[in-house]
Amino acid sequence: MSENINNIQGSVCPVPLLHHDRIVMGHGSGGKMSHDLVSRLFLPYFDSPALRAGDDAGAISLENGTRLAVSTDAHVVWPLFFPGGDIGRLAVCGTVNDVAMLGASPLYLTAGFILEEGLEVSVLEKVAASMHAAAQEAGIHIVAGDTKVVQKGKADGLYITSAGFGVIPAGRTIGGAQARPGDVVLLSGPIGDHGIAVLAARGELGFEAEVQSDIAPLNQLVVAILEASQNIHVLRDPTRGGLATTLNEIAMQSKVGIRIEETSIPVRPPVAAACEMLGFDPLYVANEGKLIAIVAAADAASVLAAMRRTRYGEEAVRIGEVTSEPPGRVLMTTRVHGTRVVDVLAGEMLPRIC
Amino acid sequence: MSENINNIQGSVCPVPLLHHDRIVMGHGSGGKMSHDLVSRLFLPYFDSPALRAGDDAGAISLENGTRLAVSTDAHVVWPLFFPGGDIGRLAVCGTVNDVAMLGASPLYLTAGFILEEGLEVSVLEKVAASMHAAAQEAGIHIVAGDTKVVQKGKADGLYITSAGFGVIPAGRTIGGAQARPGDVVLLSGPIGDHGIAVLAARGELGFEAEVQSDIAPLNQLVVAILEASQNIHVLRDPTRGGLATTLNEIAMQSKVGIRIEETSIPVRPPVAAACEMLGFDPLYVANEGKLIAIVAAADAASVLAAMRRTRYGEEAVRIGEVTSEPPGRVLMTTRVHGTRVVDVLAGEMLPRIC
Repeated sequence: MSENINNIQGSVCPVPLLHHDRIVMGHGSGGKMSHDLVSRLFLPYFDSPALRAGDDAGAISLENGTRLAVSTDAHVVWPLFFPGGDIGRLAVCGTVNDVAMLGASPLYLTAGFILEEGLEVSVLEKVAASMHAAAQEAGIHIVAGDTKVVQKGKADGLYITSAGFGVIPAGRTIGGAQARPGDVVLLSGPIGDHGIAVLAARGELGFEAEVQSDIAPLNQLVVAILEASQNIHVLRDPTRGGLATTLNEIAMQSKVGIRIEETSIPVRPPVAAACEMLGFDPLYVANEGKLIAIVAAADAASVLAAMRRTRYGEEAVRIGEVTSEPPGRVLMTTRVHGTRVVDVLAGEMLPRIC
Repeated sequence: MSENINNIQGSVCPVPLLHHDRIVMGHGSGGKMSHDLVSRLFLPYFDSPALRAGDDAGAISLENGTRLAVSTDAHVVWPLFFPGGDIGRLAVCGTVNDVAMLGASPLYLTAGFILEEGLEVSVLEKVAASMHAAAQEAGIHIVAGDTKVVQKGKADGLYITSAGFGVIPAGRTIGGAQARPGDVVLLSGPIGDHGIAVLAARGELGFEAEVQSDIAPLNQLVVAILEASQNIHVLRDPTRGGLATTLNEIAMQSKVGIRIEETSIPVRPPVAAACEMLGFDPLYVANEGKLIAIVAAADAASVLAAMRRTRYGEEAVRIGEVTSEPPGRVLMTTRVHGTRVVDVLAGEMLPRIC
């Protein structure tokens, strides 16, 4: 095979110096190693302004001036069903949310299924029904699909890769690079529910936990936020890597500091208990139905009030503010009034939670 | 888990009566079983005009009148590299071609990677380089991506799901339902190269075959066809299921008959030899760089001439015509002047060739 490998044309850079010769689980963590893989291996080949912006969705402009937000997500969550959701709901909501985070209205979705030989047809039917329900809730249409089957042992039940797009209204510029010193950081609700719910479904907690995944389509919450203020600078959903990693991404993209208050960050008691037992920091646990909104200070109170009037923003809170220093860093005022640097997720904490 | 499975809301139809309780390889064949899976299981949940049209890409209209062709493909080809191509080139060209078959200009692509733990980073880099080269050749940009990692033994190296879209010019209505009696059926070149090249790379031929996959982006060929005639009714690339299955799909969508001439269908000698040894009919072997154009008879000669002037249409030929009878059926005049019914692929012939 090597001769075919070496015949491929189009190399634009030397083989990147990743820290590993082989892919490890951490490359899928959403943290530092994922970032390394994307920036050192993929970006040199797939460079485009949309990708380089580093947002959850790419923003592109058609010739007639129409602006679209485009996103894709591969879903490999295990198990396929867990309290509060399943891989189908995840595939729809994950992509809907990424598109919404550019301030776009998600409209259309595609879904590519990779099925393992031997998968029960009834399982696939439940997943399709769940996707249908999530699509109806989000108000989007599934307009293209594909199905492939691999031999038993070459997948794990089923994987779904969704892609989606929506229209960005003229004049709207929301993105990870738009945070400004003085802005206020809002969070739509308690963190860590999704990661802990999936762990519980795996039986890895060692005890019963009453935690439901928060998977939800956030496009209506985004509409409420945008109606409340013309000064929304950043929207981002803290999925893989958790709140900590997402805030760091924004701090780096915007070249600002972010200061958060530990006591202001809501964590449900069973999630806090599970994290304490397992040695996890909830700041790094994945969410699938939460968003961060970074807003001009003058509008923060009205945006927060608007968020709280929506189904998926009832528990929204103010968690901190944007500072000029130190650029690219996230600092947290701890419970004991100290200051802690909050870094990005370094390795892999919870594999295959999305 | 079953309680979670059963809690899912949104069921719109009873569990469909597939012939199997479990997924088998044939459900990924692109033939009759794939069609069953889509029509009985997915369509009841994912119903939309774009999906129901049954074309390779979905056609949708934005509020401002912009029309887009949208498509997705999951790629699980094995091995990852084979003569004439690799999974990366396949992921780009497969989606570019599906979008082009609605007469749209493919513009943007997304790519979702599912990586198996332990995959060599150098292999991934070769695939990314190949995607870059194919994207450059096709003139499209990769604007969003995602990477997930699964444990060793839960995938087979890497899978890539691509999605893509492009703009359909105003007034253009090309699709599988547009064939009319009297139209001429053109084919852009010899069939079966891709399927046999992948088999050869697996060492399953038992002899050396000088066959290269035909994987290619066909959007420039489509431009040439559209410049040559205003009366292009159908464009379709005969991938999984081969020429026979694709012609049947068109006959059913358009409710027409299609009559082809066996002697007019080009098959390269090594492909013909391989098929004969293995008991395959080249009409059912996959292609990744060929298209069928169904054209008003008056324009057939000029379209064929235009195709032959392009890189990927040099060997284009006329293979038959559209008839009013029998609707939904494909008939072939054989070498010995008999008539044979050409049906869709029934089971699975070559798993994981795309």
